Amino acid sequence: MCRWAAWSGAPKYLEEVICDPEHSLIDQSRNALSCKTAVNADGFGVAWYGDRQTPCLYKDVRPAWSDPNLLQIARHIRSGHFLAHVRASTGTATTRDNCHPFTHDRWTFMHNGQIGGYDRVRRQFDNIIPDDLYQARMGGTDSESLFLVALAYGLTQNPRAAMAKAVFEAETMSAQAGCKPHMRFAAGWSDGETLYAARYASDNFAPTLYYREFEDGVMVVSEPLDQARNCWKEVPQGKMIAVRQGSITETAFLNDETLVEA
Amino acid sequence: MCRWAAWSGAPKYLEEVICDPEHSLIDQSRNALSCKTAVNADGFGVAWYGDRQTPCLYKDVRPAWSDPNLLQIARHIRSGHFLAHVRASTGTATTRDNCHPFTHDRWTFMHNGQIGGYDRVRRQFDNIIPDDLYQARMGGTDSESLFLVALAYGLTQNPRAAMAKAVFEAETMSAQAGCKPHMRFAAGWSDGETLYAARYASDNFAPTLYYREFEDGVMVVSEPLDQARNCWKEVPQGKMIAVRQGSITETAFLNDETLVEA
Amino acid sequence: MCRWAAWSGAPKYLEEVICDPEHSLIDQSRNALSCKTAVNADGFGVAWYGDRQTPCLYKDVRPAWSDPNLLQIARHIRSGHFLAHVRASTGTATTRDNCHPFTHDRWTFMHNGQIGGYDRVRRQFDNIIPDDLYQARMGGTDSESLFLVALAYGLTQNPRAAMAKAVFEAETMSAQAGCKPHMRFAAGWSDGETLYAARYASDNFAPTLYYREFEDGVMVVSEPLDQARNCWKEVPQGKMIAVRQGSITETAFLNDETLVEA
Amino acid sequence: MCRWAAWSGAPKYLEEVICDPEHSLIDQSRNALSCKTAVNADGFGVAWYGDRQTPCLYKDVRPAWSDPNLLQIARHIRSGHFLAHVRASTGTATTRDNCHPFTHDRWTFMHNGQIGGYDRVRRQFDNIIPDDLYQARMGGTDSESLFLVALAYGLTQNPRAAMAKAVFEAETMSAQAGCKPHMRFAAGWSDGETLYAARYASDNFAPTLYYREFEDGVMVVSEPLDQARNCWKEVPQGKMIAVRQGSITETAFLNDETLVEA
Repeated sequence: MCRWAAWSGAPKYLEEVICDPEHSLIDQSRNALSCKTAVNADGFGVAWYGDRQTPCLYKDVRPAWSDPNLLQIARHIRSGHFLAHVRASTGTATTRDNCHPFTHDRWTFMHNGQIGGYDRVRRQFDNIIPDDLYQARMGGTDSESLFLVALAYGLTQNPRAAMAKAVFEAETMSAQAGCKPHMRFAAGWSDGETLYAARYASDNFAPTLYYREFEDGVMVVSEPLDQARNCWKEVPQGKMIAVRQGSITETAFLNDETLVEA
Repeated sequence: MCRWAAWSGAPKYLEEVICDPEHSLIDQSRNALSCKTAVNADGFGVAWYGDRQTPCLYKDVRPAWSDPNLLQIARHIRSGHFLAHVRASTGTATTRDNCHPFTHDRWTFMHNGQIGGYDRVRRQFDNIIPDDLYQARMGGTDSESLFLVALAYGLTQNPRAAMAKAVFEAETMSAQAGCKPHMRFAAGWSDGETLYAARYASDNFAPTLYYREFEDGVMVVSEPLDQARNCWKEVPQGKMIAVRQGSITETAFLNDETLVEA
Repeated sequence: MCRWAAWSGAPKYLEEVICDPEHSLIDQSRNALSCKTAVNADGFGVAWYGDRQTPCLYKDVRPAWSDPNLLQIARHIRSGHFLAHVRASTGTATTRDNCHPFTHDRWTFMHNGQIGGYDRVRRQFDNIIPDDLYQARMGGTDSESLFLVALAYGLTQNPRAAMAKAVFEAETMSAQAGCKPHMRFAAGWSDGETLYAARYASDNFAPTLYYREFEDGVMVVSEPLDQARNCWKEVPQGKMIAVRQGSITETAFLNDETLVEA
Repeated sequence: MCRWAAWSGAPKYLEEVICDPEHSLIDQSRNALSCKTAVNADGFGVAWYGDRQTPCLYKDVRPAWSDPNLLQIARHIRSGHFLAHVRASTGTATTRDNCHPFTHDRWTFMHNGQIGGYDRVRRQFDNIIPDDLYQARMGGTDSESLFLVALAYGLTQNPRAAMAKAVFEAETMSAQAGCKPHMRFAAGWSDGETLYAARYASDNFAPTLYYREFEDGVMVVSEPLDQARNCWKEVPQGKMIAVRQGSITETAFLNDETLVEA
C-alpha cells in the first residue's frame, strides 16, 4: 500500500502538499494512519505540469523525508496540476523504475493497491500490452503494467472506460488464478488538464480516497492532510471523480452497469 | 536516536542479527519499540572483521530493509566480530559519511544518542581533534566527532578512559552552551578483538543497552532482538562492558569515580 | 558495450582484479582501450562464490571508481570464483536491476555486447521465457533476457547448447526485424564450479575476449589487465572456453557445426 | 578538475546548456577537452533562480548523463539565471554534500580547481569560518570551505574582495605548508542578480574560463559548448567578470594591485 496526493487548481508550491500540512505526504511516509503500512518509505515521486505539455517527473528510491533534492524542488516549484506519491512496496524491488507516478507522453498515473497474486498473472497481463507500448515497460510492478494496459485500451480517448477495463481484466486474471483479494485499487491519473481518481476493490476493502474543495482548487488524497475531517469527502467504492478547472464530476468507475459499456 | 547490534563470538552470518530474528535490526529500522523514533531509516551500516586486521565497512543512505545489496551481504558474509547500525538522523544530513559505524584503522565505533545542542558546540568540539585525525573527518555528525576526539584522547591505548573523556568533554561544552539534555550516549566500539559498549546520560534517561550471552558468543544491542526478555541483561546507566573471547567484564564508564582518573 | 573480468582458482581478494592491476576493471571503467565506449560508468557489479552454494551479488548504479562500498568489499572479500562487470548502457536505464551480473540460484551471467535492434524484438524474445522464470525478470535489458532464455533452454543441464540456442534465437529475431548487426556477444557464466566464456558475432566484429593462466588459477577478461600481452590468449570468434579446477577446455560455441546439435 | 557553465539572461531551459549543445555540460562530463580529467563524473549539480529569492539546488553523486531526474528537470525547468557543474573529485569523497554548487541564502558558488595540498591546511583554513557559518559546513571539500570563508570575509557586501581574500588566504597557507601548485581557481558565484566569474592561479596554469554574449544573455563556461571558437572570449588569468542584466564588466580579481585593497 502507498499514499498519494494530487492538486488541480491555482499554481501551488509542491511543498504545500508534500511538506507543510500537519499530516503532509512526507508525514504519511513515516506515519500513515488509514493504511495497512504506516511506513511508506520505499521511494517517492512527483509529476508536475508546467510550461511543456508533458509533465516533469522526479522520483527516487529513498524515503521522501530524507531526499534533500525533493525538499528543494518542493520548495521552489509551483504548479497548478501535480501528482505526488510515497511508496510501500508490496514485494517488487525498490528501484526508481518501480516508483510512482508513471508517465507516458502527456499522461501521468499513480496507484495505491495491488493486483492479487500478481506474480502468477504478471506474464499473462503483460501480454496485453502491444509491442509499441511494451518498449516503455521499465520495471516490474503491477501498477506500471496497469497503466500500460489502460493506455493500450485507449486511456487517452476514454479515460474511464480504458482504466476500468484494465482493472477488470487484471481482477479477472487474478480470480482465475485463485488469488485473493483479486483487486484493490485507488488511483489517480491525468493528462495535465483533467485529474481523474477512482476507488475500487473486488471485496469490500477498497483503499481510502478523499478529496477536498478549496477556493482555488481541488485536492485528492489517500488520506486527509489535516484533521479537518468534515472538509474531506470520501469517494465511494466503485466510483470515480474527474476534476477539471475547479469542477468535480463524480461517476461510476467499475460496477455492473459500467461493465456493460466497457 | 538509532538502533544497533553487535556480535562477538563464533562466526555468524550477518543476517542472523540483521535480518532473521523476530525483532531483527531490520525490523527495528521500521518498528523500534524502546526508542523515541520508531522508524530508523536514515541509512544503515555494518562493519565486520574478517581476514584483514581492518574491518570491512558497508554503509549507505537507504533504509536497511530496502537495500538489496545489504540483504545479499548479510546472507553471505560470516564473521566472528561485527557491529551493525540503523540510523534515525537527529538533524544532520542523510549521507553515507554520516552513517554509522565509523572506522579508523582497526577501530570501529557506532552510537545511539546525541550531544545536546551540537550545532552550538560543533566548532569548539571539532577543534579538539588534532590535525592528523582531522583529515579523517568526512561528515558532520556529533558521533563521528566523538570518535575522532576519543581517538585523539588515546582510544587505542585506553578504550574506556579515552571514550569517557570525549563524552565528558562534549557534555561539559553542551552544558556551558546551556543546551539540554547535555548528553545521551549508548555506544559500541571495537578493535576487532574486544567489543566495548557503554551507556550514559547527563540526566536519568540514558538510551537503552542490553547484552545476551549465547553458547558461542555475546550479543550487545540497543533493544532485544526477541521476546526472551529474561535472557537479555540491561547495562546500567554509567556502566560499560567489555566482551573478549566470550568473557564479559562490567566496569564503570563515566561517573564521579572514573572522572578522577580520566 | 561493457568490460568484465572473472577469476577461477585459488582464493583471491576481489581487489586483485577490480582495483590493483595497472589496467584493472576500475581503470577500464574510465579508460577502456579495446572498446567502442572508453567510459564504462553506468553501474557495476560483482558476484562471488563463498560459503554458500549461491553467489553473493553486489551491484549498483554508480561508476565503479566512485563507490566507497565497492572498494571496501573488494579489499576485504576473498573468493576462488568470481565475476565482475562495469557497464556502459546501450540505451536501457541505469538502474541496479539492469546492471550485471545477473544471478539465478547457483548461476551467474554477465555480458558485453547487444542484440541488434533489441527494442523491436524485446517483446517477442521475452515471450520465450516461461512463466516461472518470468517472475525473475527485474529490469529491461537484452542481457537479462538472454540469461533467462538460456535458463529456459536448459542452461543448468547443458551450459553451452542452451546459451548458444538463446543467442541464435535472438540473432534470428534481430535479422528478421531487419536490424544490424544482429548480434554481438562476449559473455561469462558460471555455476560456481565451472566458468564459461564465449565470443560470438553475427558479423566479423565480436567483442574481444581473453584469458590468462596463472600458477594458481585462470583469469578471463574483456581486455587484458596489464601490458603483458603475450600472456593473454584471445578466444577466437565463435569459440568458448570452460575453466574448471585450473584446466581450460576450448570448444566451438556457435557455428554451423554446433547449430546442427543445438 | 571539473567543468561548469552558467547563464544570465532571458529564461532558458536548463537543457539548452546542460544537454543540447554539441559539447554540452553532459558531453563534457564524459569527454572534456581542455581539462586534465576528461571524465567529470563524480556527481553534478545545478542551482537555478526562479520565483523565490533563494536558488533551487539539485545535485547528486551519479554522472550527469545517467541521472534520469536531471534530464527531466533540465527539460522542464526554465530560468533566467542558473549555474551548473559536473565534478571530477580531486580526492574528497563522492557525496552529495561535496558536489557543487554550494548555496547559502541567496548565494550560489561553484568551482573548478583546488587548493594545493588541501589535506595539510584544511584544519587551519576551516578555522577562519566563524561559528555561525561553520554550522553550514556539510562536506569536506576545499571548495565548500572557500565559499564559507568568502562569506565570512563579506561576500554579500563585496563579492570581489571577499572572494579574492579567501583565495589569497588559501594560497598563502598552501605555500607556507610547502604544497604546489598553491592555488588553481576558476569559479562562478551569484546572488541571483549578478553572476561573477574569476580565473586565477598561483602559477601560470589557471583553469580555463570563457564567456559568450548572446542576443538574450551571457553564458560563462569552463570550456566552450560548441566549435564557434571565435564567439567565446577567454577571461585572462587574474581577471574576473560580472554579468548583470546583459552587461559584462571585466575587472582585476587578484593581483598586486587588488591585494593592496583586499
